[in-house]
Amino acid sequence: PADFDLAAVYVSDAQYNRNIYFDTSPQAVRLYLLYNHWLSKVLLYFFILLDLSLAIFEEPAVFSLPIWATMLVELLCLLAFTIRLVHYAKVIPRDKFWKDPKNICIIVTLMLTLVDMIIYGALKATNCYGVRWSRVLRPLLLINVTEGRQLRRAFRSIRNALPQIFYVFLLFMFSVLIFSLMALKLLGKRGLKTIDGAPYFTNYLEIVFDLYVLVTTANSPDVMMPAYNASFVFAIFFIVYILINTYIFMSVFLAVVYNNYKKYLKEEVRQLVRAKRHKMARAFAVLQEQREEGGELVVTQANWNQVVRLVRPDISNAHRELLWSVSDDKNQGSIGKVAFVQLADLLNIEVITLKSRPHPLHSLCPAFYLSAPSRLLCRIVQHRAFVIVYDLIILVNAVFIGLDEENPMIANSEWVFLALYLLEILLKLYVFEPRAFFSRHSFWNWFDTIIVISALIATIVNSAMKSSGGYTSRQILDIVFILRVLRLIRVVDSIQRFRAIINTLIRIGPMILTFGQLIIVVYYVFAMLGMELFKGKVKFFEDPNDPAKAYCGNPLLKDTAFAQLNYCKNNFNNVVSSFILLLELTVVNQCSGFATVTHISARIFFVLFHILVVIVIINIFVAFVLEAFFVEYSVDKSDLQTSLERKIEELELAVEQYVTDNLVNAMETIDNDLGTGQSPTANKPSLMFKIASKRYRTVDALLQRMFEADLDPEDFAENDDQNGNFANPTFSSV
Amino acid sequence: PADFDLAAVYVSDAQYNRNIYFDTSPQAVRLYLLYNHWLSKVLLYFFILLDLSLAIFEEPAVFSLPIWATMLVELLCLLAFTIRLVHYAKVIPRDKFWKDPKNICIIVTLMLTLVDMIIYGALKATNCYGVRWSRVLRPLLLINVTEGRQLRRAFRSIRNALPQIFYVFLLFMFSVLIFSLMALKLLGKRGLKTIDGAPYFTNYLEIVFDLYVLVTTANSPDVMMPAYNASFVFAIFFIVYILINTYIFMSVFLAVVYNNYKKYLKEEVRQLVRAKRHKMARAFAVLQEQREEGGELVVTQANWNQVVRLVRPDISNAHRELLWSVSDDKNQGSIGKVAFVQLADLLNIEVITLKSRPHPLHSLCPAFYLSAPSRLLCRIVQHRAFVIVYDLIILVNAVFIGLDEENPMIANSEWVFLALYLLEILLKLYVFEPRAFFSRHSFWNWFDTIIVISALIATIVNSAMKSSGGYTSRQILDIVFILRVLRLIRVVDSIQRFRAIINTLIRIGPMILTFGQLIIVVYYVFAMLGMELFKGKVKFFEDPNDPAKAYCGNPLLKDTAFAQLNYCKNNFNNVVSSFILLLELTVVNQCSGFATVTHISARIFFVLFHILVVIVIINIFVAFVLEAFFVEYSVDKSDLQTSLERKIEELELAVEQYVTDNLVNAMETIDNDLGTGQSPTANKPSLMFKIASKRYRTVDALLQRMFEADLDPEDFAENDDQNGNFANPTFSSV
Repeated sequence: PADFDLAAVYVSDAQYNRNIYFDTSPQAVRLYLLYNHWLSKVLLYFFILLDLSLAIFEEPAVFSLPIWATMLVELLCLLAFTIRLVHYAKVIPRDKFWKDPKNICIIVTLMLTLVDMIIYGALKATNCYGVRWSRVLRPLLLINVTEGRQLRRAFRSIRNALPQIFYVFLLFMFSVLIFSLMALKLLGKRGLKTIDGAPYFTNYLEIVFDLYVLVTTANSPDVMMPAYNASFVFAIFFIVYILINTYIFMSVFLAVVYNNYKKYLKEEVRQLVRAKRHKMARAFAVLQEQREEGGELVVTQANWNQVVRLVRPDISNAHRELLWSVSDDKNQGSIGKVAFVQLADLLNIEVITLKSRPHPLHSLCPAFYLSAPSRLLCRIVQHRAFVIVYDLIILVNAVFIGLDEENPMIANSEWVFLALYLLEILLKLYVFEPRAFFSRHSFWNWFDTIIVISALIATIVNSAMKSSGGYTSRQILDIVFILRVLRLIRVVDSIQRFRAIINTLIRIGPMILTFGQLIIVVYYVFAMLGMELFKGKVKFFEDPNDPAKAYCGNPLLKDTAFAQLNYCKNNFNNVVSSFILLLELTVVNQCSGFATVTHISARIFFVLFHILVVIVIINIFVAFVLEAFFVEYSVDKSDLQTSLERKIEELELAVEQYVTDNLVNAMETIDNDLGTGQSPTANKPSLMFKIASKRYRTVDALLQRMFEADLDPEDFAENDDQNGNFANPTFSSV
Repeated sequence: PADFDLAAVYVSDAQYNRNIYFDTSPQAVRLYLLYNHWLSKVLLYFFILLDLSLAIFEEPAVFSLPIWATMLVELLCLLAFTIRLVHYAKVIPRDKFWKDPKNICIIVTLMLTLVDMIIYGALKATNCYGVRWSRVLRPLLLINVTEGRQLRRAFRSIRNALPQIFYVFLLFMFSVLIFSLMALKLLGKRGLKTIDGAPYFTNYLEIVFDLYVLVTTANSPDVMMPAYNASFVFAIFFIVYILINTYIFMSVFLAVVYNNYKKYLKEEVRQLVRAKRHKMARAFAVLQEQREEGGELVVTQANWNQVVRLVRPDISNAHRELLWSVSDDKNQGSIGKVAFVQLADLLNIEVITLKSRPHPLHSLCPAFYLSAPSRLLCRIVQHRAFVIVYDLIILVNAVFIGLDEENPMIANSEWVFLALYLLEILLKLYVFEPRAFFSRHSFWNWFDTIIVISALIATIVNSAMKSSGGYTSRQILDIVFILRVLRLIRVVDSIQRFRAIINTLIRIGPMILTFGQLIIVVYYVFAMLGMELFKGKVKFFEDPNDPAKAYCGNPLLKDTAFAQLNYCKNNFNNVVSSFILLLELTVVNQCSGFATVTHISARIFFVLFHILVVIVIINIFVAFVLEAFFVEYSVDKSDLQTSLERKIEELELAVEQYVTDNLVNAMETIDNDLGTGQSPTANKPSLMFKIASKRYRTVDALLQRMFEADLDPEDFAENDDQNGNFANPTFSSV
């Protein structure tokens, strides 16, 4: 009797590229299923988020809470992480648990946090000054506790690229140091003054810092002006410097990061593919049977069905049959190992099942729905001109939005536009089958409807409040404005070329989220550090008449550019302003104010931040976007997808791809026109499939496709001889 | 009788990828040889440079010259270009001449310039105001008159990428416009003020411009501060904006530019390779003979020799024999077409011929030179420790340079260092054969010697002047300082990892020069435009007491940030300051001052410049550096080079590659140690070859290698059936 649970777990692990070496006893498998349950994952993410967001309530706080409250919540979080870890320890064999550095890291982090909390609590109880230093460790939990493979992979990829980056960075720093020495010798003795009247280029370390900042372009052209004012000739020095250090070295950094990123990611994806094959082979081993003496080991359709039902209870019978007919392309009623191994990839291909239903009105009152005027209306709405007319309406609306809304004519026109948009949605609902119109993949239909209805509600609420009390809520008005402007975005969808670019951007969306996590981890660490170093040094005063506002509450800032430019709110006084300040630093590295209020060495903090975020992480981000676009331009569809498509076509179940640009057919909503009242589709089967080929269920699938062309063909062969420890791949650093 | 001249021209054209369809009559071939002569090219570049540099002397001038003088020089230049064009017309058939848009472009440019000069002269003669508008056309001559294939290719590559860039740019602008509309609605009505007290975000076009500038990061975080000061929440708006428009869209621009660049360059290189094969086939047709009845058509060694002697008179007999033995690898005394076609590529491989000569002292006075102390000295100098000791000396020297040179101890230490460096050079000259030491490829030896001797001379002159009159020349002192600091660069060469990076940078040097020309063309056009639009609007006053200095001589600039930051010298008042200003604009787009002194629409000039230079050209530059580095990481040597190397090894003529890091063996100077007094090399042949594999004679060879992996193998097959018009490849725009 085949252990379907175990097989299903293997298939599911292969499909989602989970690399956990769990015990195969039925009890452990059940625990493992619980471990992978979406609810336990949601809970985990909730506690991580809670733990990270404690920074909002801890001193320096946005909303102050007593220490015992935050401590209590943090203890709760620690408890949750411990439970998760214990759960994990129960699932996998003991020796595997202790071999994984991830687990050690979690345990150490939890212990340190506990120790820190005790020390801090004791210090606070005796009214001493204490530092919650363990807060910088919190992002480590985000990296290690979750099954955040993408995030850990990004970190590994950075770690692997570091040696190469390091050498280029050394050369770059050497160049900066040499240029600084030259600047000191050429410009230091000329008695030049900066704009503040300070001596210009007389201190070597100051010059190094100034020239480093010039690479970030933050102080261009200010740093060069005193020398340039003295003579044309000195401009040459700065031109050469910018050329070499800003343009050439920064390109080299990108090249090195990009190259390493590609190299290591390729290696990881290769190992992922290998692990996936291996897991599928194990699932096959569980399900296999021998139909005839000496015959091949196969999996029967019944067993296959049962496993797929366990793995993906949500897919329809028809869809499952389609997958089976792709796997069993010779109609033998059973499949061999090679065909079975494909299953994990097949499940990752998103197939949209379309049911051809008549329009509800068609069923309810066919005489009216099939009458000549109704048919004409349907034809009009489906016409290309209808889309163009609505695009023009949107453009006119954009102009009206730009005009002054105090004018009553303009204010009332808003009702006209709202009515027009509502009419459009109603017309479409009249023409298209509502369930198809609001199908899961009809992004733009959902977008439109939600925006229009929200705008309608907000506008009604707003005018009701206005007419009743004469009082206008600023918040509601803001929401109305935002909704109005968002409506305009829909125009983009009408233009084929734009759609292609936006689809690529949407596709790399999940990966951008991974980078978002990466950035949050780094920002969090720097925010915690920054808050300890700089909290309260720069203050922002709401009251414009407060005399301290002119120098941000710190006399050291009197008459500095920082205070004059009104940067007082750029401070580390709480976690939110820290994050915003760090984002500003990512864009342009402005830190003069903080060195003024503390010590010159505070610059190290900012330079470190620049190196880590701008030189390393942003470059990896750019590298990823580049790679994703190149994949878009070169590869089109993977082999498996085309074989599935061939099958769909063979079965004559495919929906022809409309190339028209019209809104309703946009993106992945080709299913819409199935519900039209007219019956050009009457002779088609009632069930249709379409591959949402332009979407990837998982980031891994996208990555696999990105490097598919370069993958060794042998990786697709089955190699189940080695007994599997699917630890994350490790590399010897170059 | 074979026409060796004609064959040599074909081979030479193939070698340098010249695509001129010349007449094959002996007279036309002679004219064509003259056309390609280095002297006529130098003359041409001289006249182009002269023509371009006229901007220095024309109003607004750096050095003013009377109009008649500049006009006369320009007429001379025009005459030179006309002669060159007539010469070209004589070389190629008449119909080909008129089909080439390049020639039409030159003729039109020349005519327009002449017309403009006449109009301008007439206007000036009658004291009217005239604009020399034809000056913006001058860079067209740089592009079209010269055989600047690289430059024209870069322009073609930009032109071909434009449609793709255009669509992304439209989407980007759409995003900016939508965000601006939202900003207007959200922030415009709140009565916020900018730092200058002006209303904040109330004018739509102003907002669009401000947000566009935010993409260039020039006004971050200033543009966001008023909103951020009003509420935390508005920061979200700017964060989303920066994320989408600065990070994602700028990466997409790079991706699109890079992808198109690669695609079209690949196509061009493929056509180049095809044309090259075709030309070699023609050369073969001229030289071919049939040795036996019905036998293969071949080229004999005698004919081959004569052609190679004509094409490359500079290569030694031994080198030529080596090339022959690579081509005729079966020793038949003649080669077929396939082997002959390789010749063009073989000639492009740089083979260093090394002659093993004894050291002059060894010949003059062997008893002394081979004595034990002398041998010990040689061993010391060649030892790794010697390099390390001198690296340490350089580091100590760096510290001394950084110290105050007024201190007499420090000032005198300079003599010690100079003496040490001189000693090093003398010691090396004692150990190594001088001609090998100063061979053409010994970059660092030349560098060292020139720097040290110049420093010695400058220091002597300086101290002579000081001791005689007590007067120190600032210029000479500057030179001394620069030379001292430059000496430190040598340390880089001692570290293997740095050398690898620097070698890649040196290799892409020629291509960077192409980009330099490209940038100069664009800068020149914008400088001419900018000078007409903004000349005299912003003035710089040398005298610090001039009251007009505080507002750059323009009352409109009173109390603006532009004047306060002392940017007065950033102006368009002559061509040099225009170029420097444009470079500053490339780094950071600061243009508020110019909109203030003229009109708000002046911003269009600056936005156009940003789009063209930053979004297009800088991205192409980055794309090229990326590609060059990837080639470095992946491909190693081309097939032909390895076959040549194999041959060299077979003939036991190769110098083994020392992997040691020491200075003397650095870069391409492995030839040095051949001249050592000791004779471990005594049993080696007296003549050696080595492939300077890491150098490319031509940019085309580098490009060809860059895309070699992707080239169709059929392109390397001979296809001489089509009759050749080697016009530059054209593409249908996508």
